[in-house]
Amino acid sequence: MKKIAFLGLGTMGGPMARNLIAAGHELAVFDVSARALEPFASLPCRIAGSPRDAATGVDAVITMLPDSAHVREALLGAAGACQALEKGRLVIDMSTIAASSSLALARDLNALGYRMLDAPVGRTPADAAAGTLLVIVGGAEADLAEARPIFERLGSTIVHAGPQGHGIKLKLVNNYMSAVGTLLTAEALTLAKKVGLDRAITVQVLSSTTAGRGQLIVNYPKKVLAGDVSPDFPMRMAHKDVSHALSLGAEAGSPLLLGAIAREMLALAGPWGRADQDWTAMLLLLEDLSRA
Amino acid sequence: MKKIAFLGLGTMGGPMARNLIAAGHELAVFDVSARALEPFASLPCRIAGSPRDAATGVDAVITMLPDSAHVREALLGAAGACQALEKGRLVIDMSTIAASSSLALARDLNALGYRMLDAPVGRTPADAAAGTLLVIVGGAEADLAEARPIFERLGSTIVHAGPQGHGIKLKLVNNYMSAVGTLLTAEALTLAKKVGLDRAITVQVLSSTTAGRGQLIVNYPKKVLAGDVSPDFPMRMAHKDVSHALSLGAEAGSPLLLGAIAREMLALAGPWGRADQDWTAMLLLLEDLSRA
Amino acid sequence: MKKIAFLGLGTMGGPMARNLIAAGHELAVFDVSARALEPFASLPCRIAGSPRDAATGVDAVITMLPDSAHVREALLGAAGACQALEKGRLVIDMSTIAASSSLALARDLNALGYRMLDAPVGRTPADAAAGTLLVIVGGAEADLAEARPIFERLGSTIVHAGPQGHGIKLKLVNNYMSAVGTLLTAEALTLAKKVGLDRAITVQVLSSTTAGRGQLIVNYPKKVLAGDVSPDFPMRMAHKDVSHALSLGAEAGSPLLLGAIAREMLALAGPWGRADQDWTAMLLLLEDLSRA
Amino acid sequence: MKKIAFLGLGTMGGPMARNLIAAGHELAVFDVSARALEPFASLPCRIAGSPRDAATGVDAVITMLPDSAHVREALLGAAGACQALEKGRLVIDMSTIAASSSLALARDLNALGYRMLDAPVGRTPADAAAGTLLVIVGGAEADLAEARPIFERLGSTIVHAGPQGHGIKLKLVNNYMSAVGTLLTAEALTLAKKVGLDRAITVQVLSSTTAGRGQLIVNYPKKVLAGDVSPDFPMRMAHKDVSHALSLGAEAGSPLLLGAIAREMLALAGPWGRADQDWTAMLLLLEDLSRA
Repeated sequence: MKKIAFLGLGTMGGPMARNLIAAGHELAVFDVSARALEPFASLPCRIAGSPRDAATGVDAVITMLPDSAHVREALLGAAGACQALEKGRLVIDMSTIAASSSLALARDLNALGYRMLDAPVGRTPADAAAGTLLVIVGGAEADLAEARPIFERLGSTIVHAGPQGHGIKLKLVNNYMSAVGTLLTAEALTLAKKVGLDRAITVQVLSSTTAGRGQLIVNYPKKVLAGDVSPDFPMRMAHKDVSHALSLGAEAGSPLLLGAIAREMLALAGPWGRADQDWTAMLLLLEDLSRA
Repeated sequence: MKKIAFLGLGTMGGPMARNLIAAGHELAVFDVSARALEPFASLPCRIAGSPRDAATGVDAVITMLPDSAHVREALLGAAGACQALEKGRLVIDMSTIAASSSLALARDLNALGYRMLDAPVGRTPADAAAGTLLVIVGGAEADLAEARPIFERLGSTIVHAGPQGHGIKLKLVNNYMSAVGTLLTAEALTLAKKVGLDRAITVQVLSSTTAGRGQLIVNYPKKVLAGDVSPDFPMRMAHKDVSHALSLGAEAGSPLLLGAIAREMLALAGPWGRADQDWTAMLLLLEDLSRA
Repeated sequence: MKKIAFLGLGTMGGPMARNLIAAGHELAVFDVSARALEPFASLPCRIAGSPRDAATGVDAVITMLPDSAHVREALLGAAGACQALEKGRLVIDMSTIAASSSLALARDLNALGYRMLDAPVGRTPADAAAGTLLVIVGGAEADLAEARPIFERLGSTIVHAGPQGHGIKLKLVNNYMSAVGTLLTAEALTLAKKVGLDRAITVQVLSSTTAGRGQLIVNYPKKVLAGDVSPDFPMRMAHKDVSHALSLGAEAGSPLLLGAIAREMLALAGPWGRADQDWTAMLLLLEDLSRA
Repeated sequence: MKKIAFLGLGTMGGPMARNLIAAGHELAVFDVSARALEPFASLPCRIAGSPRDAATGVDAVITMLPDSAHVREALLGAAGACQALEKGRLVIDMSTIAASSSLALARDLNALGYRMLDAPVGRTPADAAAGTLLVIVGGAEADLAEARPIFERLGSTIVHAGPQGHGIKLKLVNNYMSAVGTLLTAEALTLAKKVGLDRAITVQVLSSTTAGRGQLIVNYPKKVLAGDVSPDFPMRMAHKDVSHALSLGAEAGSPLLLGAIAREMLALAGPWGRADQDWTAMLLLLEDLSRA
């Protein structure tokens, strides 16, 4: 996989492409934005006029684009890469797009004779620059083996999440949890502010407990994930404390939307016989409810 | 503060009282449950017949009880500690109760000539046994100074959160965030399971990213809390990813209640001019909405 | 029940008391607000100095107060009605308070030798004035029979909801549904405005369909409540339409918090085998989830 | 508009097509399901082999299909109607699809020289059969005028919602409100059941109040929509009652997800200065928050 078409040179794609160029790959790069292409003029790579142009004669195509429609257009559109890409080649989508779109794309690419990996990345623009991204890969073992040298130029952690689609699915689960986490953090800090707490003290305390350090890391591994739901802290006490926090928020006019929902779910522990189990048994309750 | 009445010998209160006894304090202990009192029969302490009995002749009263009503009854009830406690003494409530109840209690105790600290604790029963609790204190500096030697027997971190009520408020903010965190973790892991992801791989990946390690620790300090909302990851991309995750959950029949709410709040970034700001700017958005 | 102590002369209590006076009852009225008492100075009633004073020599006590604590204080406080009320008399609480407080009050009143009806009212201040309230009664048949002549002066519809506590419970269910309804209506109208729809047309259309006229009246009686969940409109189509509405809201920056939750619950129809049932089968799904 | 291609003969489309045939229109009908086509074999219409076939020589095309992708495929696909439809003709989409898809479709059809109306329908399969549907139309006045005779065969109420896209937008707002309404009704009835209330009495009472009859019809027109937010029932009392209902639900293990959210929004009335305004002022609060 010496020759690569790299489509999408934004905040993440830009530094990723530069890393591959620096590693000696022959890149044909493309972006709809002339400004994104500019810095590549002085690099040892080819600036293509379209995805089709970029894909001519390459071993693989990498897409790093904003969303589902952009990836589909870049690959299967009228000026798309597949108009030029040799059959049998590997398409690697590193964007974060809809899982259903990713799977539909894989089906369409397979039907055209291509192989595909969904390989979205985690971490920050700084990691993209440093080549220390997290690469979460879905697809065949053999295809991953072929692409691994490239991934190792881009990231420091390569995870094979499973077959086609599992990379993007795991990425979405990951971003789901971190994006909701930003609202949860905002709710807690806003409540603290509204009730007159000092921000520095608040951040210091929350950062030292499960609140900031996270249930997944602090409690889940030793409790529910280890099959133990004996109560270090029972669901009914969590329900009580969230109720008190909601009352505090109500008095202060600080909306606690996530906690309002969490309280209702904690109340379900009663009818499902889990009120005296550890609060990490919320996992089992949710599995019950969704018949997982 | 040599002589202490300790009321409430449950999962947390039991080991806490034992630590004070081991440190040489003269304790009069009480619990409504005979079974909770049993292990204290062989310890060098006095087993009291009521809170009033326990409070006779002591320097301070500590309460470690399930909820607001229990604390009020133990202190102000017909057989409550205040029936016997000498005026001017310190009452230390280490329970996690409603903030409004805690403040009402302080008002009532003050009116009777007592001083009060709200000093709820964080961490686990194991920490209670090891004397490594987190003690979050609200009240006067002087009162905290007086109680500090006791707190240092119980915990390894003593935080003065602010004046009366600030201890319990900060504790509730803390438990709010950690309790909602257990639902968030459960949602993510249930979604992962429903879409066929391997649990070990899922936990490994999420534990290594902001998802598991937490926005408060990973991103907030260097971004919004540092006054920087330039986008490492903009609100609009967080909105997109949560939307994709919700679609995935909808297809799989996995309910994502917290994320459903988070998505609506992320959508508000548009009209509030924050769509291109870093996702930690959710804090500013929430402050806007609640006029914090 | 000729002589009545009427405690609480606010927006609702004021006109209610006037109706009873006009009907020839001998009223002793009390309110903590001098201004609320003022208009009664010129009426043929006695203005009492306290609930205790009001309750001296009466056949029954009626409370119409803001919330739980006020009712408890007015009846059981140091200057409360029970300090003077003859044993065996009837106490009628027409306030909307916490159900648990109402039941606790009933227990305490029973222990003191009194009987109690929880009899909160529905409808508006105008109905209070016209004597056309809805009175929802919980308690013993015999007590209701005794109080009925009074209720018939106050309201045009008297419903016996069941034994003690059932009146307040049904009232809370009722107000729950109508209060959430005001947010639901607000969400729909705000979305309509944000996407450029004319308000008059919007209101006209929504008022003519199930949206405005209500599932409980339009669809529930003939479908799920009649045991028929064959799909006039299946859960899966409702899920699709709510999803489309949420997308519309996201594009417009219009938060649809209730619908975001509703969509997640509709998605649960899949794993619970109800996706092809009528959308009123949401009732059965919720009963499944809460093990009702 | 004598000759019409009618695409989609499902629960709604079937009876609609039959009504047009009965009214003397020359229909070419198509459905991907042979079974849906069957009953048309004996009717005076032409059964087409594809949307393209159906559209040959007609004055207009009507689509009544499940979702966005089906409509797009039926019109613009390889065997789509536009392969045969004469330029300048009218395309009428009566499906309920994504608003963004509907608008994109209109743009694409316009670019190809066609005119389009989005004209989704309300009400039930029974109304489809009786020709008493509600037709909500978006598009040009002139196009609506042209299509009106057809609409009048299908429905008894024809509403011009506004320009292109406004028909589908209003339909989505409508279905949003009614679909969330089914969850709200389910929550209230489940709570009632869990706390032991009789279902018949519950339904009877709720159906007679704003709870069942709806805020949009009962209170909004005379209050907030008339510019009057003086409190018939203030936001703060609605907050109190929802809080009490949530406590009741928590004790009973009955989840009240919508109300949990509603309570948080009602609490925002405080900081936004609306706590003493009528509960219909929730509309103004939501407009504030979304900057509508």
